[in-house]
Amino acid sequence: MAENLVNFGILGCAKIAIKLARAINLAPNSILYAIASRSLEKAKQFAIQNGLPETIKIYGSYEELLDDPSIEVVYLPLPTSLHVQWTVLAAQKKKHVLLEKPVALDVGDLDKILEACVSNGVQFLDGSMWLHHPRTMRMKELLFDSNLVGHVDFIHSTSTAKMPPEFFENNIRVKQDMDALGVLGDLGWYCVGAVLWAKNYEIPNVVSALPAGVTRNSAGIVLSCTACLNYDQDHKTVAVIHCSFFSYTSMDLSITGTKGSLHLKDFVIPYQEGSAFFDLASPATFMDDQTGWNAETEKGCGG
Amino acid sequence: MAENLVNFGILGCAKIAIKLARAINLAPNSILYAIASRSLEKAKQFAIQNGLPETIKIYGSYEELLDDPSIEVVYLPLPTSLHVQWTVLAAQKKKHVLLEKPVALDVGDLDKILEACVSNGVQFLDGSMWLHHPRTMRMKELLFDSNLVGHVDFIHSTSTAKMPPEFFENNIRVKQDMDALGVLGDLGWYCVGAVLWAKNYEIPNVVSALPAGVTRNSAGIVLSCTACLNYDQDHKTVAVIHCSFFSYTSMDLSITGTKGSLHLKDFVIPYQEGSAFFDLASPATFMDDQTGWNAETEKGCGG
Repeated sequence: MAENLVNFGILGCAKIAIKLARAINLAPNSILYAIASRSLEKAKQFAIQNGLPETIKIYGSYEELLDDPSIEVVYLPLPTSLHVQWTVLAAQKKKHVLLEKPVALDVGDLDKILEACVSNGVQFLDGSMWLHHPRTMRMKELLFDSNLVGHVDFIHSTSTAKMPPEFFENNIRVKQDMDALGVLGDLGWYCVGAVLWAKNYEIPNVVSALPAGVTRNSAGIVLSCTACLNYDQDHKTVAVIHCSFFSYTSMDLSITGTKGSLHLKDFVIPYQEGSAFFDLASPATFMDDQTGWNAETEKGCGG
Repeated sequence: MAENLVNFGILGCAKIAIKLARAINLAPNSILYAIASRSLEKAKQFAIQNGLPETIKIYGSYEELLDDPSIEVVYLPLPTSLHVQWTVLAAQKKKHVLLEKPVALDVGDLDKILEACVSNGVQFLDGSMWLHHPRTMRMKELLFDSNLVGHVDFIHSTSTAKMPPEFFENNIRVKQDMDALGVLGDLGWYCVGAVLWAKNYEIPNVVSALPAGVTRNSAGIVLSCTACLNYDQDHKTVAVIHCSFFSYTSMDLSITGTKGSLHLKDFVIPYQEGSAFFDLASPATFMDDQTGWNAETEKGCGG
């Protein structure tokens, strides 16, 4: 057990855990202490394939990892249908929880998870990394500077990833008993989160998906969806989100206000790890001779 | 009358005519020969304010200009409700027609206009400049290269301009008897046109605007609108458009396909007159270590 470092355990060897394992060890104040899978063999394979140090503890069951008193935080990349069971147990074992998104199948389940964390005095965080990126902090400062973007009238966000044919047969994200939220939970999560972020977590009062804008598989799981989130209160805003397992990778976020706009095409995962940019245009007017825009259109922010 | 140059007449001294007058004289094979307003004084003011040469003919009525046999083409920036009357008369006077958008209040009116042009053997063109820009030609080549963007799944287009308070009182674009299509005719025209362009003029089979996404004035004129255009045939595509007189200037066009995507933020009027760019990303995959994108993301095209 390393001194002065937060010891992480990973519950489940999902693909996304590769990225988190690397990030945990890159962070100056944390270390990956143990991993667990439902079989010892699978956990060992994960450790070898990802070059984890031999000192790492490897467990063949989730319970064993949760019973290790050295572990302070667990990261859970399990299928959504297992989140209540394992997050509540982790909280009861006094582990802080980093829970992969989507956090729960519905609000009732999330309330159970949060209640367990609160009553056991442990912290809870979901796996929406982009919200914690320095770029996002900088954008938020600019977005809420009333002289730059002004009142936000329109938000557009996409999160799409083209999945291979076998995905639609076998992946947990298209299975009713695993990740029943389908693309809404996996990718739409980011779009909805971006809208809420841009509206400072104000809740929309009308949310609607057009039937023609939704594709489902035979089990009813949503595979692509276009939807509107409307704010009809004093500060009217229309937000359109689009998420799909059929389209090429996209992560667009465009925010248009009464004074300016903010655009990015890589809002979930920046193009590069070491730097990240966005476009802020404010104000923009046409040239007097109408030959072009008189705009400050390009700004950015180091990561 | 200049030799070997096409003689243009402008019918109506709208603000947009300033831009067209300049463009007509910049083109190597055309010249602005005459302008007409409903009053001689207004036409004279327009000529002086825009530095038009003293040789230009100035008419105090539209009929007089149309009776000038030297004029071969007329540009009509009149309110939409006047388009049938004056375009049909121009065609009957054997003038080719460049008609400002929106071309007509409905398809029936447009059919009358086109019928008049066909039966009188004159050409018809609408004022959608961006379709004729070299950048658009280049984008079309790339869009229909099946290896780059692939099947287009999703299209997003905005056209917004923040109008001052007096606009909402007095402008022809909010008046039932002038430009009854409101923002749909003035700005939504570009969004809808961009969707049709990207779909090679295939017609959507479901078009819907959500009630909560539409703002109208007391006369019922649409001032902002968010709508979906759905293609549910073999080649399924969802398109979302947003047009508004309330938002800051935006002209976004994003096209997401199964293999790549195309993005621009100035599709109607390029930022600069002498050059124009777009972003084509194809293909993009995540780096093996998931630290970023392995994408060719930036390409462009000189104007």
